[in-house]
Amino acid sequence: MGKGRLEAFSDGVIAIIITIMVLELKVPHDASWEALRHLGPVFLSYVLSFIYVGIYWNNHHHMLHAAKSVNGSILWANLFLLFWLSLIPFVTAWMGENHFAQLPVICYGIVLIMNSIAYLILISILVRHHGENSVLARAIGSDTKGKISAGIYAAAIVVSFIHSWIAFGMYFIVALIWLVPDKRIERKLSEENGGHHLS
Amino acid sequence: MGKGRLEAFSDGVIAIIITIMVLELKVPHDASWEALRHLGPVFLSYVLSFIYVGIYWNNHHHMLHAAKSVNGSILWANLFLLFWLSLIPFVTAWMGENHFAQLPVICYGIVLIMNSIAYLILISILVRHHGENSVLARAIGSDTKGKISAGIYAAAIVVSFIHSWIAFGMYFIVALIWLVPDKRIERKLSEENGGHHLS
Amino acid sequence: MGKGRLEAFSDGVIAIIITIMVLELKVPHDASWEALRHLGPVFLSYVLSFIYVGIYWNNHHHMLHAAKSVNGSILWANLFLLFWLSLIPFVTAWMGENHFAQLPVICYGIVLIMNSIAYLILISILVRHHGENSVLARAIGSDTKGKISAGIYAAAIVVSFIHSWIAFGMYFIVALIWLVPDKRIERKLSEENGGHHLS
Amino acid sequence: MGKGRLEAFSDGVIAIIITIMVLELKVPHDASWEALRHLGPVFLSYVLSFIYVGIYWNNHHHMLHAAKSVNGSILWANLFLLFWLSLIPFVTAWMGENHFAQLPVICYGIVLIMNSIAYLILISILVRHHGENSVLARAIGSDTKGKISAGIYAAAIVVSFIHSWIAFGMYFIVALIWLVPDKRIERKLSEENGGHHLS
Repeated sequence: MGKGRLEAFSDGVIAIIITIMVLELKVPHDASWEALRHLGPVFLSYVLSFIYVGIYWNNHHHMLHAAKSVNGSILWANLFLLFWLSLIPFVTAWMGENHFAQLPVICYGIVLIMNSIAYLILISILVRHHGENSVLARAIGSDTKGKISAGIYAAAIVVSFIHSWIAFGMYFIVALIWLVPDKRIERKLSEENGGHHLS
Repeated sequence: MGKGRLEAFSDGVIAIIITIMVLELKVPHDASWEALRHLGPVFLSYVLSFIYVGIYWNNHHHMLHAAKSVNGSILWANLFLLFWLSLIPFVTAWMGENHFAQLPVICYGIVLIMNSIAYLILISILVRHHGENSVLARAIGSDTKGKISAGIYAAAIVVSFIHSWIAFGMYFIVALIWLVPDKRIERKLSEENGGHHLS
Repeated sequence: MGKGRLEAFSDGVIAIIITIMVLELKVPHDASWEALRHLGPVFLSYVLSFIYVGIYWNNHHHMLHAAKSVNGSILWANLFLLFWLSLIPFVTAWMGENHFAQLPVICYGIVLIMNSIAYLILISILVRHHGENSVLARAIGSDTKGKISAGIYAAAIVVSFIHSWIAFGMYFIVALIWLVPDKRIERKLSEENGGHHLS
Repeated sequence: MGKGRLEAFSDGVIAIIITIMVLELKVPHDASWEALRHLGPVFLSYVLSFIYVGIYWNNHHHMLHAAKSVNGSILWANLFLLFWLSLIPFVTAWMGENHFAQLPVICYGIVLIMNSIAYLILISILVRHHGENSVLARAIGSDTKGKISAGIYAAAIVVSFIHSWIAFGMYFIVALIWLVPDKRIERKLSEENGGHHLS
């Protein structure tokens, strides 16, 4: 089965998720600085989640670029990932509107962990489908960065019992780690294709 | 006429349907456990409907993968299916917000039945267009699973007069039946292509 | 310039327009028949507009299928059409919520007329770009159906001063006229390609 | 890395941005002329922003048409542009609902400037990736129009301290400058391909 529609559907869902989050930036009824400043925490949450969804789209793009084909299990593993991504706008808005109160910050962390797990499941099914010696398997490698991220999310949830803003800072740090572009798959693919960069 | 834009448009509409449902998970104004627990039934409805829309996307993907071309009737049969899919977010939110009261549960079942009927119509027009001996026709077969599902929905509507939660459970069971991936078309196509799995 | 992204962008916008209309079917807070019956006019408006947007997508699909390439003017004429299509959800909801009061019914008619005009502009720029003897030009022909529709919309606006429900009925009749699939372009293309129906 | 999914994802996000803006045209509860007239400023803002987002889509389309491939930095520069585009619906609604009060008009200008900067960054990374002598680099040229626009936005922000409606007029003038189609890239590409206009 071709991967074209899986990519198109995922692009669609991720594009909607990243865009509807902005609807939670509720338009204030007056034109004052106070109204704008009041939106500060919601805006900060939006920036963080925009980066996270952007990271997932980016990695999803790289991973499927290395894939040759998909099957029924991969379609469902992908939907499982999209489900957890779809909860990001909810926890983003809840965290922002409650000025980073403890419970929403914990829920945000849980949704991030579930996204990590869903992504790891998708990777492992893709690798099994393509074989351990495929370009995809070698390109993904051991995904150390993914496992470290999940660990930091878990630590942030514990930290949120002490001070929820520190937990929020930890989520931001993971996002910044990922903003450093992931050269692994790109480099591997270049090697395989003898440096040819047109797909 | 090519099937490319039909797939692209359907992917777009289904991606939006599956994603806007999450907007009904209204962000609570306080950060308490009570607020979160109150969202329980809405969340449960969301999970069920996410699975249903995912199943439709999955089956739609498989079916059109086996199609060679489309015509005007197929475009309209597809729009008829998309219309009934588009009502799922409404009945999902209504059922969740009213904690599975009888009338919303019945309406949810009616929308599911109409989706089944729309899907059967789309299948039969596609089969007529491709011929009874086409790969598509043989791949789809008699669609027993689709007919059983429609029967269970109808039974669930009757049951909802006794207890609406049992009806809700029956909808979940049908969803789980479909989560078992549908190997029919995938297998048939593999046979036709001599096991070649790249589209 | 290729037509691929124009089709993809138009599909995206039209898919969103057809789907966000359902958000105006506001979820009632109680589970009664009265609540459901109260939504009747909004639902009726939704059905009508779903058919209209479906018709535009269908015709857009057929027209661009016959196009070979696009230029800057075509991109802007297409955006002009998308602008007027994007106002359909607003007038639909306004007409439904006010139970087909006169002013919303007139505005609905004006938006339909503007859509007709935008579509005629798009057609004429496409024909100029491809030449009067192109497949596209001969496939579109004189677009009598489009001109008759615009006339009925104008008549409906006049009629709405007497009784707005009759005007609403006239909009429905135009939609039904278009539901009869437009064989013109499909037939012409078949002839040109010697009956070959794969694109 | 291929540019296909970057285009598809950008099309999706821009299509959603241009369409959700219409949701801020809140449906009035009564069917009177007063209710409609009250929406005037919101409608005017919507028209302006529809044109701006349309311009960005148009230019994005032209620019990537000339691109041969993309890399990780380009994906992130593109997401940075999409982030600032995603804030247009918010500032549009805020400006419209407050009848072009000073602070929202300033914020609208700031978001436009940030979009200009994000677009210039994307251009410069694309040019660096393709080389100074590539078709893309020669097609884009010095982007004088982009720099003049950013200058007018800055001037409009200063002017808004005197009268915010003049600033709004200046935003409109920039939009009209861009509505004159940008022949640069189209012409250059035609030259390179010997006038061949099919992509």
